[in-house]
Amino acid sequence: MQERGFPQDEFEIRVAHAQKDMASAGIEALLLSTEADVRYFTGFLTRFWESPTRPWFVIVPAAGDPIAVIPSIGAALMAQTWLSDIRTWRAPDPHDDGVSLLIDTLNQVAGAGRIGVPSGPETHIRMPLADWARVVAGCDGTIGSANGIMRRLRAIKSDREIAKIARACDIAAAAFADVPRIAAQGTPLSQVFREFQAACLGHGADWVPYLAGGAGPSGYSDVISPAADTPLARGDVLMLDTGLVWDGYFCDFDRNFSVGPPDTAAREAHARLIDAVDAAADIAAPGATAAELFHAMDRIVTGGAGGSDAGRLGHGLGMQLTEGLSLVPADHTPLKPGMVITLEPGMDVAAGRIMVHEEVIAITQEGCRFLSPRASRELVQI
Amino acid sequence: MQERGFPQDEFEIRVAHAQKDMASAGIEALLLSTEADVRYFTGFLTRFWESPTRPWFVIVPAAGDPIAVIPSIGAALMAQTWLSDIRTWRAPDPHDDGVSLLIDTLNQVAGAGRIGVPSGPETHIRMPLADWARVVAGCDGTIGSANGIMRRLRAIKSDREIAKIARACDIAAAAFADVPRIAAQGTPLSQVFREFQAACLGHGADWVPYLAGGAGPSGYSDVISPAADTPLARGDVLMLDTGLVWDGYFCDFDRNFSVGPPDTAAREAHARLIDAVDAAADIAAPGATAAELFHAMDRIVTGGAGGSDAGRLGHGLGMQLTEGLSLVPADHTPLKPGMVITLEPGMDVAAGRIMVHEEVIAITQEGCRFLSPRASRELVQI
Repeated sequence: MQERGFPQDEFEIRVAHAQKDMASAGIEALLLSTEADVRYFTGFLTRFWESPTRPWFVIVPAAGDPIAVIPSIGAALMAQTWLSDIRTWRAPDPHDDGVSLLIDTLNQVAGAGRIGVPSGPETHIRMPLADWARVVAGCDGTIGSANGIMRRLRAIKSDREIAKIARACDIAAAAFADVPRIAAQGTPLSQVFREFQAACLGHGADWVPYLAGGAGPSGYSDVISPAADTPLARGDVLMLDTGLVWDGYFCDFDRNFSVGPPDTAAREAHARLIDAVDAAADIAAPGATAAELFHAMDRIVTGGAGGSDAGRLGHGLGMQLTEGLSLVPADHTPLKPGMVITLEPGMDVAAGRIMVHEEVIAITQEGCRFLSPRASRELVQI
Repeated sequence: MQERGFPQDEFEIRVAHAQKDMASAGIEALLLSTEADVRYFTGFLTRFWESPTRPWFVIVPAAGDPIAVIPSIGAALMAQTWLSDIRTWRAPDPHDDGVSLLIDTLNQVAGAGRIGVPSGPETHIRMPLADWARVVAGCDGTIGSANGIMRRLRAIKSDREIAKIARACDIAAAAFADVPRIAAQGTPLSQVFREFQAACLGHGADWVPYLAGGAGPSGYSDVISPAADTPLARGDVLMLDTGLVWDGYFCDFDRNFSVGPPDTAAREAHARLIDAVDAAADIAAPGATAAELFHAMDRIVTGGAGGSDAGRLGHGLGMQLTEGLSLVPADHTPLKPGMVITLEPGMDVAAGRIMVHEEVIAITQEGCRFLSPRASRELVQI
């Protein structure tokens, strides 16, 4: 059985990499406040982040182990991680919800030095703006950008991380294989969604944070809607796109199905989406850029129009459903071994109808390997 | 069958209330960026927020309908809501991810006036700090606190909202009734978690964003841990605490079970937790305060020690797993009809072992009513 968690050296390596980058950037303390960033250095895994009430912090000093500054309700679980310096307050405290404890710790760690906080794409400060202003005012040091340290670090997955993503992909693949049993002409889409999530759990998902999809004649109108109770009709294309989690790591890929025999438009669109994935996979290797993968797919799905309203044709993933690079013309990030990304071409099939296909690949020394099982060009019929 | 969504007047009433409060506070535009706040005024319901990549905004003007400023991938779904002014950009854009469009819209709506953003407890600005700084610099008006408008508004649920929370509670209650079928001596806790989530879906949950729990002799060590693969043992107390969603509204309550006959400590602790809930429910009525409910329970579970590391003995809920008031000594918020809160007393049972019980109540004109089915003082034996 695949092991949960990581041995301590996984975290020590992450911290060492961060501290090297911090030294280059002159950062004395790295302040983290979001689920993925906190977990990245600690292994602290809980669904309790669903509650917006309490802020949580981890500080990575220039040297030495990270320090947790957290609500006391999390002390027992944090004590099970490799961290030893765990400072707590009884949250929620309407008068001082961790602000003083955070300021004291930052001043102790960083003094008058520079404090870096993730400030770029996909980040946010997970605490109230009014409290953040008090932190900025109360610190002896200056608070500024973390210089992209987290983004660069998290983009390159260790073999252990990739194994967890691969496990999540395997579980989703098993659930997709159940779809012909779950969905048929007449089944309400909302029931398909419920039973598909149950299938993900049945095959070993810890939880299913994300499921989207759609169904309609020759395609669907968008890919982010929740399910309506509308029954599947003959001629519909059904799409399910799931981000399930195993041990804190996501998969993210989709599958299309035809309710009864597909019409020509849907059949040809699906084949072309697979061709687009193949074209990107063919060039996915260290040194190729995110933009190059975009163009390889865009040439096939739009003839090179330069994109669509979806905004991108794939993205990184890992501890979050989407993270890191985006397959868009403006993202020139070079691929590196250890990156895990999705290839997600979409195309217009008919007026107001689109189809989207998505697979997950890991970049290797030589090229890439599929973590999701490659779909065939033929639409699966249900 | 209970209807999904809301008729348009639900949103019009919410906007009217907000605009009245905005006028009192001299706020020309209310800027919202989080899932619940955006959905509150629009009905925009999607699990796509799981992706941290794209920012989303809604602006409530001093008069007139809200304006959505969102990524184009969401345009089709937002067009299904009652909003007509929907402004989009192709996200992600590494150079300008909605910042210019947001600034232009805010300047158009607020001019040199005051722009309010939620800044207090449980809030955050869901966009990168660097982009936020550009927004602050680019607006002609001044950006400041929203004066607690969202917190006050969202605290009072309409009958339609309460009906959705009640439906979520009914679904969870049906799933809890399945636990004796799912869990027994020897069942790994991780399997119990997976099958319980599947049971929630089977009984009609749209999704299960939250499940925590624990198991151990006479109690568990904390209430926020994910499940380990450890099998349930005779004498364990098993606790499951779920926040499942129906049509965008949460339940949040737990149940304790004894694997085999409970020992005296667990049996007595459970009875006392129920007594604490009863004591709070007895005084839960308009005019009583959050702090008074806290003390009613704290007297029973600690003899009046003033709290524990959990930090609070209950909280509001609704569109989020936890929102609004906290049952702590420092929260003197008076209860009002339409509030929905949990009563969540916990107590130490043995060294390092706790038990927690939780129910959901709605405050009525006269007192309160239970939305979760009140548990009996006797621990259910599995």
